[in-house]
Amino acid sequence: MSDARAIGVFDSGMGGLTVLRALRAQLPHEDLIYLGDTARLPYGTKSADTVTAYALQATKQLLRHDVKMVVIACNTASAVAIGPLATQHAPLPVIGVVEPGARAGVAATRSNRIGVLATESTVKGGAYARAISSLAPEAHVRQQACALFVALAEEGWGTDAIAEDAAARYLKPLFSDPATAPDTLVLGCTHFPVLAPAIAKVLGNDVTLVDSAATTAQAVADALQAHDLMTDHGTAGSERFLATDAPERFARVGGLFFGTDIDENSVELIDLQL
Amino acid sequence: MSDARAIGVFDSGMGGLTVLRALRAQLPHEDLIYLGDTARLPYGTKSADTVTAYALQATKQLLRHDVKMVVIACNTASAVAIGPLATQHAPLPVIGVVEPGARAGVAATRSNRIGVLATESTVKGGAYARAISSLAPEAHVRQQACALFVALAEEGWGTDAIAEDAAARYLKPLFSDPATAPDTLVLGCTHFPVLAPAIAKVLGNDVTLVDSAATTAQAVADALQAHDLMTDHGTAGSERFLATDAPERFARVGGLFFGTDIDENSVELIDLQL
Repeated sequence: MSDARAIGVFDSGMGGLTVLRALRAQLPHEDLIYLGDTARLPYGTKSADTVTAYALQATKQLLRHDVKMVVIACNTASAVAIGPLATQHAPLPVIGVVEPGARAGVAATRSNRIGVLATESTVKGGAYARAISSLAPEAHVRQQACALFVALAEEGWGTDAIAEDAAARYLKPLFSDPATAPDTLVLGCTHFPVLAPAIAKVLGNDVTLVDSAATTAQAVADALQAHDLMTDHGTAGSERFLATDAPERFARVGGLFFGTDIDENSVELIDLQL
Repeated sequence: MSDARAIGVFDSGMGGLTVLRALRAQLPHEDLIYLGDTARLPYGTKSADTVTAYALQATKQLLRHDVKMVVIACNTASAVAIGPLATQHAPLPVIGVVEPGARAGVAATRSNRIGVLATESTVKGGAYARAISSLAPEAHVRQQACALFVALAEEGWGTDAIAEDAAARYLKPLFSDPATAPDTLVLGCTHFPVLAPAIAKVLGNDVTLVDSAATTAQAVADALQAHDLMTDHGTAGSERFLATDAPERFARVGGLFFGTDIDENSVELIDLQL
Protein backbone atom coordinates (compact mmCIF):
# COMPACT_ATOMS: atom_id res chain seq x y z
CA MET A 1 0.00 0.00 0.00
CA SER A 2 1.06 3.56 -0.58
CA ASP A 3 -0.39 7.06 -0.67
CA ALA A 4 0.84 9.82 -2.97
CA ARG A 5 -1.09 12.62 -1.23
CA ALA A 6 0.88 15.44 0.40
CA ILE A 7 1.73 15.88 4.07
CA GLY A 8 0.25 19.08 5.53
CA VAL A 9 2.39 21.12 7.90
CA PHE A 10 1.34 24.27 9.72
CA ASP A 11 2.84 26.87 12.00
CA SER A 12 1.99 30.35 13.26
CA GLY A 13 4.52 31.71 10.77
CA MET A 14 7.95 30.81 9.49
CA GLY A 15 9.63 29.10 12.48
CA GLY A 16 8.05 25.77 11.53
CA LEU A 17 10.13 25.80 8.38
CA THR A 18 12.92 24.28 10.54
CA VAL A 19 10.59 21.28 10.84
CA LEU A 20 9.80 21.34 7.11
CA ARG A 21 13.54 21.30 6.41
CA ALA A 22 13.96 18.21 8.60
CA LEU A 23 10.96 16.54 6.91
CA ARG A 24 12.46 17.24 3.49
CA ALA A 25 15.76 15.67 4.56
CA GLN A 26 14.06 12.65 6.14
CA LEU A 27 11.41 12.07 3.45
CA PRO A 28 12.83 13.14 0.09
CA HIS A 29 9.96 11.76 -1.98
CA GLU A 30 6.98 13.14 -0.08
CA ASP A 31 5.06 16.18 -1.28
CA LEU A 32 4.81 18.80 1.49
CA ILE A 33 2.30 21.64 1.89
CA TYR A 34 3.26 24.25 4.47
CA LEU A 35 0.82 26.79 5.89
CA GLY A 36 2.11 29.79 7.87
CA ASP A 37 -0.56 31.83 9.71
CA THR A 38 1.42 35.06 9.25
CA ALA A 39 -1.69 37.25 9.63
CA ARG A 40 -1.93 36.28 13.30
CA LEU A 41 1.58 35.29 14.38
CA PRO A 42 2.99 34.84 16.92
CA TYR A 43 0.92 32.26 18.81
CA GLY A 44 3.34 32.16 21.75
CA THR A 45 1.78 35.06 23.64
CA LYS A 46 -1.85 34.10 22.98
CA SER A 47 -4.35 32.09 25.00
CA ALA A 48 -4.97 28.36 24.62
CA ASP A 49 -8.54 28.95 23.36
CA THR A 50 -7.44 31.37 20.68
CA VAL A 51 -4.52 29.20 19.53
CA THR A 52 -6.81 26.14 19.37
CA ALA A 53 -9.33 28.04 17.23
CA TYR A 54 -6.54 29.15 14.87
CA ALA A 55 -5.12 25.62 14.66
CA LEU A 56 -8.54 24.17 13.79
CA GLN A 57 -8.88 26.71 10.96
CA ALA A 58 -5.40 25.87 9.65
CA THR A 59 -6.13 22.14 9.68
CA LYS A 60 -9.42 22.65 7.85
CA GLN A 61 -7.54 24.57 5.16
CA LEU A 62 -4.92 21.82 4.80
CA LEU A 63 -7.66 19.20 4.49
CA ARG A 64 -9.05 21.14 1.54
CA HIS A 65 -5.75 20.30 -0.10
CA ASP A 66 -6.43 16.61 0.60
CA VAL A 67 -3.45 15.98 2.87
CA LYS A 68 -2.89 12.50 4.30
CA MET A 69 -1.43 13.67 7.60
CA VAL A 70 -1.11 16.94 9.55
CA VAL A 71 2.10 18.00 11.28
CA ILE A 72 1.79 20.82 13.83
CA ALA A 73 5.20 22.45 13.38
CA CYS A 74 4.56 24.94 16.19
CA ASN A 75 5.27 24.20 19.81
CA THR A 76 2.56 26.46 21.16
CA ALA A 77 -0.13 24.94 18.94
CA SER A 78 1.15 21.40 19.59
CA ALA A 79 1.06 22.04 23.30
CA VAL A 80 -2.54 23.22 23.45
CA ALA A 81 -4.33 21.99 20.32
CA ILE A 82 -3.16 18.49 19.42
CA GLY A 83 -5.92 16.84 21.45
CA PRO A 84 -8.82 18.81 19.90
CA LEU A 85 -7.31 18.45 16.40
CA ALA A 86 -6.78 14.71 16.61
CA THR A 87 -10.27 14.16 18.05
CA GLN A 88 -12.06 16.34 15.54
CA HIS A 89 -10.29 14.88 12.50
CA ALA A 90 -9.84 11.21 13.51
CA PRO A 91 -8.61 8.95 11.96
CA LEU A 92 -6.31 11.52 10.27
CA PRO A 93 -2.86 11.16 11.85
CA VAL A 94 -1.84 14.38 13.61
CA ILE A 95 1.77 14.75 14.78
CA GLY A 96 2.98 17.59 17.01
CA VAL A 97 6.47 18.62 18.01
CA VAL A 98 6.11 18.38 21.79
CA GLU A 99 6.02 14.61 22.22
CA PRO A 100 9.02 13.96 19.91
CA GLY A 101 10.96 16.79 21.63
CA ALA A 102 10.18 15.38 25.06
CA ARG A 103 11.23 11.89 23.91
CA ALA A 104 14.54 13.21 22.55
CA GLY A 105 15.18 15.10 25.80
CA VAL A 106 14.58 11.98 27.87
CA ALA A 107 16.88 9.95 25.58
CA ALA A 108 19.66 12.54 25.89
CA THR A 109 19.76 13.22 29.63
CA ARG A 110 22.15 11.37 31.90
CA SER A 111 21.30 13.27 35.10
CA ASN A 112 17.51 13.22 34.70
CA ARG A 113 17.54 17.02 34.89
CA ILE A 114 16.00 18.47 31.76
CA GLY A 115 15.48 22.14 30.95
CA VAL A 116 12.87 23.36 28.47
CA LEU A 117 13.20 26.71 26.68
CA ALA A 118 9.95 27.82 25.07
CA THR A 119 7.48 30.65 24.50
CA GLU A 120 5.43 32.15 27.31
CA SER A 121 2.29 30.19 26.33
CA THR A 122 4.09 26.86 26.00
CA VAL A 123 5.71 27.29 29.41
CA LYS A 124 2.42 28.36 30.98
CA GLY A 125 0.60 25.34 29.55
CA GLY A 126 3.25 22.95 30.92
CA ALA A 127 2.87 20.46 28.03
CA TYR A 128 6.59 19.62 27.87
CA ALA A 129 6.77 18.98 31.60
CA ARG A 130 3.79 16.63 31.34
CA ALA A 131 5.15 14.84 28.26
CA ILE A 132 8.57 14.35 29.87
CA SER A 133 7.07 13.17 33.16
CA SER A 134 4.89 10.60 31.44
CA LEU A 135 7.97 9.18 29.65
CA ALA A 136 10.33 9.48 32.63
CA PRO A 137 8.51 10.03 35.93
CA GLU A 138 11.86 10.39 37.74
CA ALA A 139 12.99 13.34 35.59
CA HIS A 140 13.24 16.85 37.01
CA VAL A 141 11.98 19.40 34.52
CA ARG A 142 12.54 23.14 34.67
CA GLN A 143 11.07 25.53 32.14
CA GLN A 144 12.15 28.98 31.01
CA ALA A 145 10.19 31.33 28.75
CA CYS A 146 12.49 33.12 26.27
CA ALA A 147 10.22 35.60 24.49
CA LEU A 148 13.01 37.63 22.92
CA PHE A 149 14.47 34.64 21.08
CA VAL A 150 11.61 34.73 18.54
CA ALA A 151 12.28 38.38 17.65
CA LEU A 152 16.04 37.80 17.56
CA ALA A 153 15.67 34.85 15.17
CA GLU A 154 13.29 36.76 12.90
CA GLU A 155 15.60 39.80 12.84
CA GLY A 156 18.50 37.60 11.70
CA TRP A 157 20.32 38.42 14.96
CA GLY A 158 20.18 34.88 16.33
CA THR A 159 23.89 34.15 16.25
CA ASP A 160 25.59 37.24 17.61
CA ALA A 161 26.49 39.07 20.81
CA ILE A 162 22.99 40.37 21.59
CA ALA A 163 21.64 36.82 21.30
CA GLU A 164 24.37 35.59 23.66
CA ASP A 165 23.53 38.31 26.19
CA ALA A 166 19.83 37.42 26.04
CA ALA A 167 20.64 33.71 26.34
CA ALA A 168 22.90 34.33 29.33
CA ARG A 169 20.12 36.24 31.06
CA TYR A 170 17.41 33.66 30.39
CA LEU A 171 19.64 30.71 31.31
CA LYS A 172 21.08 32.13 34.55
CA PRO A 173 18.21 30.98 36.81
CA LEU A 174 18.42 27.42 35.45
CA PHE A 175 22.18 27.10 35.86
CA SER A 176 22.92 29.21 38.94
CA ASP A 177 23.10 26.12 41.20
CA PRO A 178 25.34 23.33 39.78
CA ALA A 179 23.50 20.79 41.95
CA THR A 180 20.23 21.35 40.10
CA ALA A 181 21.47 22.49 36.68
CA PRO A 182 20.08 20.47 33.75
CA ASP A 183 22.40 18.48 31.48
CA THR A 184 19.93 18.64 28.59
CA LEU A 185 17.97 21.57 27.16
CA VAL A 186 14.99 21.00 24.90
CA LEU A 187 14.54 23.84 22.41
CA GLY A 188 10.78 24.00 22.74
CA CYS A 189 10.09 26.56 20.00
CA THR A 190 10.77 26.12 16.32
CA HIS A 191 12.55 29.49 16.20
CA PHE A 192 15.12 28.51 18.79
CA PRO A 193 17.41 26.22 16.74
CA VAL A 194 18.62 29.42 15.04
CA LEU A 195 19.95 30.49 18.46
CA ALA A 196 21.59 27.13 19.26
CA PRO A 197 25.16 28.43 18.63
CA ALA A 198 24.58 31.41 20.95
CA ILE A 199 23.11 29.14 23.65
CA ALA A 200 25.99 26.69 23.26
CA LYS A 201 28.49 29.52 23.63
CA VAL A 202 26.90 30.52 26.95
CA LEU A 203 26.68 26.94 28.27
CA GLY A 204 29.81 25.26 26.89
CA ASN A 205 29.81 21.66 25.75
CA ASP A 206 28.49 19.97 28.88
CA VAL A 207 24.86 20.60 28.06
CA THR A 208 23.10 18.75 25.24
CA LEU A 209 20.74 20.85 23.11
CA VAL A 210 17.77 18.95 21.74
CA ASP A 211 16.09 20.33 18.63
CA SER A 212 12.71 18.70 18.10
CA ALA A 213 12.72 19.22 14.31
CA ALA A 214 14.75 16.10 13.51
CA THR A 215 12.93 13.93 16.02
CA THR A 216 9.57 15.15 14.73
CA ALA A 217 10.59 14.22 11.19
CA GLN A 218 11.45 10.74 12.44
CA ALA A 219 8.06 10.50 14.20
CA VAL A 220 6.34 11.49 10.93
CA ALA A 221 8.29 8.82 9.01
CA ASP A 222 7.31 6.21 11.62
CA ALA A 223 3.65 7.24 11.44
CA LEU A 224 3.61 7.09 7.63
CA GLN A 225 5.01 3.58 7.84
CA ALA A 226 2.57 2.51 10.55
CA HIS A 227 -0.44 3.78 8.58
CA ASP A 228 0.81 2.56 5.17
CA LEU A 229 0.85 6.15 3.96
CA MET A 230 4.34 6.39 2.37
CA THR A 231 4.36 7.52 -1.22
CA ASP A 232 5.87 5.05 -3.66
CA HIS A 233 6.70 7.47 -6.44
CA GLY A 234 10.48 7.65 -6.66
CA THR A 235 10.75 11.27 -7.79
CA ALA A 236 11.77 14.21 -5.62
CA GLY A 237 8.89 15.56 -3.53
CA SER A 238 7.59 19.10 -3.99
CA GLU A 239 7.03 21.89 -1.48
CA ARG A 240 4.11 24.24 -1.60
CA PHE A 241 3.78 27.32 0.61
CA LEU A 242 0.58 29.00 1.83
CA ALA A 243 0.59 32.14 4.01
CA THR A 244 -2.25 34.17 5.50
CA ASP A 245 -0.37 37.46 5.05
CA ALA A 246 2.70 39.15 3.54
CA PRO A 247 4.14 36.52 1.13
CA GLU A 248 7.21 38.71 0.55
CA ARG A 249 8.13 38.70 4.24
CA PHE A 250 7.29 34.98 4.48
CA ALA A 251 9.79 34.25 1.70
CA ARG A 252 12.49 36.58 3.05
CA VAL A 253 12.35 35.61 6.75
CA GLY A 254 11.37 32.02 5.92
CA GLY A 255 14.64 31.45 4.12
CA LEU A 256 16.44 31.90 7.47
CA PHE A 257 14.54 28.95 8.91
CA PHE A 258 14.20 26.70 5.85
CA GLY A 259 17.90 27.04 5.09
CA THR A 260 17.15 27.45 1.38
CA ASP A 261 15.90 30.57 -0.39
CA ILE A 262 12.14 30.68 -0.91
CA ASP A 263 10.84 32.35 -4.05
CA GLU A 264 8.27 35.03 -3.10
CA ASN A 265 6.16 34.06 -6.11
CA SER A 266 5.84 30.50 -4.87
CA VAL A 267 4.01 31.66 -1.70
CA GLU A 268 0.23 31.65 -2.09
CA LEU A 269 -1.81 34.16 -0.05
CA ILE A 270 -4.87 32.56 1.59
CA ASP A 271 -7.60 33.61 4.04
CA LEU A 272 -8.32 31.24 6.92
CA GLN A 273 -11.43 33.07 8.02
CA LEU A 274 -13.42 32.25 4.90
CA MET B 1 -22.37 72.40 23.70
CA SER B 2 -20.77 69.34 25.21
CA ASP B 3 -20.73 65.58 24.81
CA ALA B 4 -20.36 63.10 27.68
CA ARG B 5 -19.76 60.06 25.48
CA ALA B 6 -16.42 58.25 25.74
CA ILE B 7 -13.40 58.56 23.46
CA GLY B 8 -12.50 55.24 21.80
CA VAL B 9 -8.84 54.30 21.51
CA PHE B 10 -7.45 51.21 19.82
CA ASP B 11 -4.11 49.54 19.27
CA SER B 12 -2.79 46.15 18.19
CA GLY B 13 -2.07 45.41 21.83
CA MET B 14 -0.71 47.23 24.83
CA GLY B 15 1.79 49.74 23.36
CA GLY B 16 -1.03 52.22 22.72
CA LEU B 17 -1.48 52.52 26.46
CA THR B 18 1.36 55.10 26.32
CA VAL B 19 -1.11 57.18 24.31
CA LEU B 20 -3.96 56.44 26.73
CA ARG B 21 -1.72 57.60 29.56
CA ALA B 22 -1.08 60.90 27.76
CA LEU B 23 -4.81 61.29 27.04
CA ARG B 24 -5.63 60.71 30.70
CA ALA B 25 -3.11 63.41 31.72
CA GLN B 26 -4.34 65.87 29.07
CA LEU B 27 -8.08 65.22 29.47
CA PRO B 28 -8.79 64.28 33.10
CA HIS B 29 -12.59 64.40 32.77
CA GLU B 30 -13.10 62.36 29.62
CA ASP B 31 -14.21 58.72 29.73
CA LEU B 32 -11.83 56.52 27.74
CA ILE B 33 -12.45 53.08 26.20
CA TYR B 34 -9.30 51.24 25.10
CA LEU B 35 -9.36 48.23 22.78
CA GLY B 36 -6.23 46.08 22.38
CA ASP B 37 -6.33 43.51 19.55
CA THR B 38 -4.15 41.08 21.51
CA ALA B 39 -5.43 38.05 19.55
CA ARG B 40 -3.66 39.31 16.44
CA LEU B 41 -0.81 41.51 17.65
CA PRO B 42 1.64 42.69 16.47
CA TYR B 43 0.48 44.65 13.43
CA GLY B 44 4.00 45.87 12.62
CA THR B 45 5.01 42.87 10.52
CA LYS B 46 1.69 42.51 8.69
CA SER B 47 0.48 43.80 5.33
CA ALA B 48 -1.43 47.06 4.81
CA ASP B 49 -4.56 45.20 3.66
CA THR B 50 -4.63 42.96 6.71
CA VAL B 51 -3.96 45.83 9.14
CA THR B 52 -6.70 47.92 7.50
CA ALA B 53 -9.20 45.06 7.83
CA TYR B 54 -8.29 44.66 11.52
CA ALA B 55 -8.56 48.43 12.13
CA LEU B 56 -12.03 48.56 10.54
CA GLN B 57 -13.19 45.73 12.84
CA ALA B 58 -11.78 47.50 15.90
CA THR B 59 -13.51 50.76 14.99
CA LYS B 60 -16.82 48.97 14.44
CA GLN B 61 -16.50 47.48 17.92
CA LEU B 62 -15.75 50.89 19.49
CA LEU B 63 -18.77 52.41 17.74
CA ARG B 64 -20.96 49.77 19.41
CA HIS B 65 -19.86 51.46 22.63
CA ASP B 66 -21.13 54.77 21.24
CA VAL B 67 -17.80 56.61 21.22
CA LYS B 68 -17.66 60.21 20.03
CA MET B 69 -14.20 60.01 18.51
CA VAL B 70 -11.70 57.28 17.56
CA VAL B 71 -7.99 57.52 18.32
CA ILE B 72 -5.70 55.08 16.49
CA ALA B 73 -3.01 54.61 19.13
CA CYS B 74 -0.93 52.40 16.86
CA ASN B 75 1.57 53.75 14.37
CA THR B 76 1.22 50.89 11.92
CA ALA B 77 -2.58 51.19 11.81
CA SER B 78 -2.42 54.99 11.68
CA ALA B 79 0.03 54.80 8.80
CA VAL B 80 -2.07 52.53 6.61
CA ALA B 81 -5.69 52.74 7.80
CA ILE B 82 -6.55 56.29 8.80
CA GLY B 83 -7.83 57.17 5.32
CA PRO B 84 -10.20 54.20 4.97
CA LEU B 85 -11.40 54.62 8.58
CA ALA B 86 -12.12 58.33 8.29
CA THR B 87 -13.91 57.86 4.97
CA GLN B 88 -16.02 54.92 6.07
CA HIS B 89 -17.11 56.53 9.35
CA ALA B 90 -17.36 60.24 8.41
CA PRO B 91 -18.18 62.57 10.12
CA LEU B 92 -16.75 60.72 13.15
CA PRO B 93 -13.42 62.39 14.01
CA VAL B 94 -10.54 59.90 13.66
CA ILE B 95 -7.12 60.87 15.01
CA GLY B 96 -3.95 58.87 14.35
CA VAL B 97 -0.49 59.16 15.87
CA VAL B 98 1.51 59.70 12.67
CA GLU B 99 0.47 63.26 11.84
CA PRO B 100 0.98 64.58 15.42
CA GLY B 101 4.34 62.78 15.60
CA ALA B 102 5.46 64.26 12.29
CA ARG B 103 4.35 67.72 13.41
CA ALA B 104 6.31 67.41 16.67
CA GLY B 105 9.41 66.25 14.77
CA VAL B 106 9.22 69.22 12.41
CA ALA B 107 8.79 71.59 15.36
CA ALA B 108 11.82 70.12 17.15
CA THR B 109 14.42 69.95 14.38
CA ARG B 110 16.94 72.73 13.86
CA SER B 111 18.93 71.04 11.08
CA ASN B 112 15.95 69.79 9.06
CA ARG B 113 17.34 66.28 9.37
CA ILE B 114 14.77 64.04 11.04
CA GLY B 115 15.10 60.33 11.77
CA VAL B 116 12.11 58.05 12.24
CA LEU B 117 12.33 54.80 14.22
CA ALA B 118 9.37 52.51 13.60
CA THR B 119 8.18 48.98 12.86
CA GLU B 120 8.93 47.23 9.61
CA SER B 121 5.45 47.92 8.18
CA THR B 122 5.44 51.60 9.15
CA VAL B 123 8.85 52.12 7.55
CA LYS B 124 7.82 50.23 4.43
CA GLY B 125 4.66 52.30 4.05
CA GLY B 126 6.60 55.55 4.35
CA ALA B 127 3.73 57.43 6.07
CA TYR B 128 6.02 59.43 8.38
CA ALA B 129 8.26 60.51 5.53
CA ARG B 130 5.19 61.72 3.60
CA ALA B 131 3.66 63.46 6.62
CA ILE B 132 6.93 65.24 7.43
CA SER B 133 7.51 66.23 3.80
CA SER B 134 4.06 67.73 3.49
CA LEU B 135 4.68 69.85 6.61
CA ALA B 136 8.32 70.71 5.79
CA PRO B 137 9.24 69.99 2.17
CA GLU B 138 12.85 70.95 2.86
CA ALA B 139 13.31 68.31 5.58
CA HIS B 140 15.52 65.26 5.05
CA VAL B 141 13.89 62.18 6.52
CA ARG B 142 15.61 58.86 7.18
CA GLN B 143 13.78 55.87 8.54
CA GLN B 144 15.00 52.85 10.48
CA ALA B 145 12.97 49.73 11.31
CA CYS B 146 13.66 48.52 14.88
CA ALA B 147 11.75 45.25 15.14
CA LEU B 148 13.44 44.06 18.32
CA PHE B 149 12.35 47.13 20.31
CA VAL B 150 8.78 45.81 20.54
CA ALA B 151 9.89 42.51 22.06
CA LEU B 152 12.35 44.27 24.40
CA ALA B 153 9.63 46.63 25.67
CA GLU B 154 7.14 43.78 26.21
CA GLU B 155 9.76 41.69 28.02
CA GLY B 156 10.40 44.56 30.45
CA TRP B 157 13.98 44.78 29.13
CA GLY B 158 13.59 48.20 27.55
CA THR B 159 15.94 50.10 29.83
CA ASP B 160 19.02 47.93 30.20
CA ALA B 161 22.24 46.88 28.47
CA ILE B 162 20.65 44.61 25.87
CA ALA B 163 18.34 47.45 24.84
CA GLU B 164 21.35 49.77 24.54
CA ASP B 165 23.21 47.26 22.36
CA ALA B 166 20.18 46.86 20.10
CA ALA B 167 19.72 50.65 19.92
CA ALA B 168 23.40 51.15 19.06
CA ARG B 169 23.12 48.66 16.23
CA TYR B 170 19.91 50.12 14.78
CA LEU B 171 21.11 53.72 15.09
CA LYS B 172 24.59 53.24 13.62
CA PRO B 173 23.56 53.64 9.95
CA LEU B 174 21.70 56.88 10.71
CA PHE B 175 24.54 58.46 12.68
CA SER B 176 27.67 57.10 10.98
CA ASP B 177 28.17 60.30 8.97
CA PRO B 178 27.97 63.49 11.12
CA ALA B 179 27.18 65.53 7.99
CA THR B 180 23.88 63.70 7.48
CA ALA B 181 23.05 62.65 11.06
CA PRO B 182 19.58 63.74 12.24
CA ASP B 183 19.19 66.09 15.20
CA THR B 184 15.68 64.81 15.95
CA LEU B 185 14.35 61.25 16.20
CA VAL B 186 10.63 60.54 16.05
CA LEU B 187 9.71 57.44 18.05
CA GLY B 188 7.26 56.08 15.49
CA CYS B 189 5.93 53.15 17.49
CA THR B 190 3.98 53.34 20.73
CA HIS B 191 6.29 50.75 22.31
CA PHE B 192 9.41 52.81 21.78
CA PRO B 193 9.03 55.48 24.52
CA VAL B 194 9.88 52.66 26.95
CA LEU B 195 13.29 52.51 25.24
CA ALA B 196 13.87 56.28 25.24
CA PRO B 197 16.45 56.15 28.09
CA ALA B 198 18.46 53.45 26.27
CA ILE B 199 18.33 55.40 23.01
CA ALA B 200 19.35 58.61 24.79
CA LYS B 201 22.29 56.81 26.38
CA VAL B 202 23.53 55.76 22.94
CA LEU B 203 23.02 59.19 21.35
CA GLY B 204 23.84 61.61 24.15
CA ASN B 205 21.96 64.86 24.63
CA ASP B 206 22.42 66.39 21.18
CA VAL B 207 19.51 64.52 19.64
CA THR B 208 15.89 65.35 20.52
CA LEU B 209 13.59 62.35 20.97
CA VAL B 210 9.98 62.98 19.98
CA ASP B 211 7.33 60.78 21.53
CA SER B 212 4.06 61.15 19.66
CA ALA B 213 1.88 60.21 22.66
CA ALA B 214 1.82 63.71 24.18
CA THR B 215 1.36 65.45 20.82
CA THR B 216 -1.44 63.04 19.92
CA ALA B 217 -3.19 63.84 23.19
CA GLN B 218 -2.94 67.54 22.33
CA ALA B 219 -4.37 66.85 18.85
CA VAL B 220 -7.29 64.99 20.45
CA ALA B 221 -7.95 67.89 22.82
CA ASP B 222 -7.90 70.33 19.88
CA ALA B 223 -10.30 68.15 17.87
CA LEU B 224 -12.72 67.82 20.81
CA GLN B 225 -12.75 71.60 21.09
CA ALA B 226 -13.16 72.13 17.36
CA HIS B 227 -16.13 69.72 17.18
CA ASP B 228 -17.72 70.86 20.47
CA LEU B 229 -17.27 67.37 21.87
CA MET B 230 -15.69 68.10 25.28
CA THR B 231 -17.51 66.63 28.22
CA ASP B 232 -18.76 69.16 30.78
CA HIS B 233 -19.08 66.84 33.74
CA GLY B 234 -16.44 67.87 36.24
CA THR B 235 -15.78 64.44 37.74
CA ALA B 236 -12.74 62.28 37.01
CA GLY B 237 -13.08 60.32 33.77
CA SER B 238 -13.13 56.52 33.75
CA GLU B 239 -11.06 54.01 31.77
CA ARG B 240 -12.47 50.83 30.34
CA PHE B 241 -10.31 48.08 28.78
CA LEU B 242 -11.31 45.62 26.05
CA ALA B 243 -8.93 42.93 24.73
CA THR B 244 -9.38 40.27 22.07
CA ASP B 245 -7.23 37.73 23.95
CA ALA B 246 -5.43 36.99 27.22
CA PRO B 247 -6.73 39.65 29.67
CA GLU B 248 -4.18 38.51 32.28
CA ARG B 249 -1.24 39.27 29.97
CA PHE B 250 -2.91 42.51 28.84
CA ALA B 251 -3.08 43.67 32.45
CA ARG B 252 0.44 42.54 33.34
CA VAL B 253 2.31 43.84 30.27
CA GLY B 254 -0.05 46.79 29.87
CA GLY B 255 0.96 48.20 33.24
CA LEU B 256 4.48 48.75 31.79
CA PHE B 257 3.03 51.08 29.16
CA PHE B 258 0.17 52.69 31.07
CA GLY B 259 2.47 53.52 33.97
CA THR B 260 -0.24 52.43 36.43
CA ASP B 261 -1.20 48.89 37.41
CA ILE B 262 -4.17 47.49 35.51
CA ASP B 263 -6.50 45.13 37.36
CA GLU B 264 -6.88 41.90 35.35
CA ASN B 265 -10.56 41.76 36.28
CA SER B 266 -11.20 45.14 34.69
CA VAL B 267 -10.17 43.83 31.24
CA GLU B 268 -13.10 42.55 29.21
CA LEU B 269 -12.48 39.78 26.66
CA ILE B 270 -14.18 40.45 23.31
CA ASP B 271 -14.30 38.86 19.83
CA LEU B 272 -13.82 41.20 16.87
CA GLN B 273 -14.79 38.59 14.33
CA LEU B 274 -18.40 38.32 15.46
